[in-house]
Amino acid sequence: MAAIGEYRLHRRVNFYETDAAGIVHFSTFFRYMEEAEHALWRAAGITIAERNAAIGWPRVGASFEYFRPLRFEEEFEALIRIVEIGEKKIRYSCLLSSAGEKVAVGAMSIVCVAKGPNGTMKSTPIPANIASLFQVAT
Amino acid sequence: MAAIGEYRLHRRVNFYETDAAGIVHFSTFFRYMEEAEHALWRAAGITIAERNAAIGWPRVGASFEYFRPLRFEEEFEALIRIVEIGEKKIRYSCLLSSAGEKVAVGAMSIVCVAKGPNGTMKSTPIPANIASLFQVAT
Amino acid sequence: MAAIGEYRLHRRVNFYETDAAGIVHFSTFFRYMEEAEHALWRAAGITIAERNAAIGWPRVGASFEYFRPLRFEEEFEALIRIVEIGEKKIRYSCLLSSAGEKVAVGAMSIVCVAKGPNGTMKSTPIPANIASLFQVAT
Amino acid sequence: MAAIGEYRLHRRVNFYETDAAGIVHFSTFFRYMEEAEHALWRAAGITIAERNAAIGWPRVGASFEYFRPLRFEEEFEALIRIVEIGEKKIRYSCLLSSAGEKVAVGAMSIVCVAKGPNGTMKSTPIPANIASLFQVAT
Repeated sequence: MAAIGEYRLHRRVNFYETDAAGIVHFSTFFRYMEEAEHALWRAAGITIAERNAAIGWPRVGASFEYFRPLRFEEEFEALIRIVEIGEKKIRYSCLLSSAGEKVAVGAMSIVCVAKGPNGTMKSTPIPANIASLFQVAT
Repeated sequence: MAAIGEYRLHRRVNFYETDAAGIVHFSTFFRYMEEAEHALWRAAGITIAERNAAIGWPRVGASFEYFRPLRFEEEFEALIRIVEIGEKKIRYSCLLSSAGEKVAVGAMSIVCVAKGPNGTMKSTPIPANIASLFQVAT
Repeated sequence: MAAIGEYRLHRRVNFYETDAAGIVHFSTFFRYMEEAEHALWRAAGITIAERNAAIGWPRVGASFEYFRPLRFEEEFEALIRIVEIGEKKIRYSCLLSSAGEKVAVGAMSIVCVAKGPNGTMKSTPIPANIASLFQVAT
Repeated sequence: MAAIGEYRLHRRVNFYETDAAGIVHFSTFFRYMEEAEHALWRAAGITIAERNAAIGWPRVGASFEYFRPLRFEEEFEALIRIVEIGEKKIRYSCLLSSAGEKVAVGAMSIVCVAKGPNGTMKSTPIPANIASLFQVAT
């Protein structure tokens, strides 16, 4: 399988994702971005969180700029793209759009960590067999 | 310390707990009930979810009847009471009220399980040192 | 279009729906049940929450019994069925299953309300054009 | 009352805020930041979301950098500070810390909008009686 660098998630807004302003709560966009990321990893043939895995992928940074709101039952696309693959870190961008309009633009960085006893986490190089599945989006 | 059977949690509604109907989403009430339960356990001197604990407390049933809505920034009380302590199971009731009015009435049952490898869970008797901390609310 | 009485939603568990016990948080099942309900309404040709609608559909009761946990990325089905259509009330049952196994069984009741000024809600008969879209599942 | 520029929220991690990695989900930090913001507004004597208000405060940007995880029942402080008050916009920084350690650093920008019919929102100058309640944190 060729290395992949992006994924387009198609989704509809659920009611419980809205707030009393009648729009999707701004924190929910980070869940959409992660949902798209995990779909990208599945498309690459792996899961980002295998049970009892020796490594994990905590987020070290995440951001969104919001351009227009999303409302209940609106359909949207979350396009996630790999922007950088470092020795220990992967950086993504994420474009949310709906009906041809830009909704929000996000970014997220994750690091590879080795899980120690008592829940400790220490950054570690990305295993070669995982790094080879991904590429920077072109 | 005497065994305890109930706890009154005081809380204010957060914005992200509301939905586009302008009221607290019905699923959020189950989070309030659990929040009160965990405060009850802390009041008994223990945590319900110690890291790497050999036992766990999954929910086997939960329900709510809703009488009036809660809105952003409303203050409310969640009174959780132990209704039954069985060999392997604890059953709670939960009364949510705000400004002297009944908001919702809930129930929840949890069982004690031994955690096996690969995330398996097998019901097991409640350890005596835990059971002794609690009593049916009077 | 013939009246419909049930809907099967197919879904995969998202990471943010799990908790530190490694399984889907029990409150999330209520969101799954509602998601299936709203898909049922869309399949009937309408939305349950039109913006500025004169009526609304608050929940008056909801419950789940849990039989086995769901984990990250597991696929499941939520089968929602109409159990009763009253003058002002609709009652559903919901069966969650995964890999041929029963995961959880839920129930939910909603009432039709007229929205008054200041967010007041008063129960009102279900409009005939809405009631005619649905039937008790057979 | 003197204008205020910051607020320290004290909180404990709830179980439903954690994920299967055993730590608070990264999207939850944005909810903590908003919770601190709303407490700041209450401390200033007003609510950020009055029902039927003619104006609203959507977020136009939000970000977090994460330094260490938070776990179930850990206590933390969210210190929110006003960094800039523009004609139509307020910008905050937010420092999360626990047990004397830096947990995460966030930022958030909100704009004042006039609510039009059909849920439209148009940016508008911050009313003077609101702007006068706040000041840049010193």
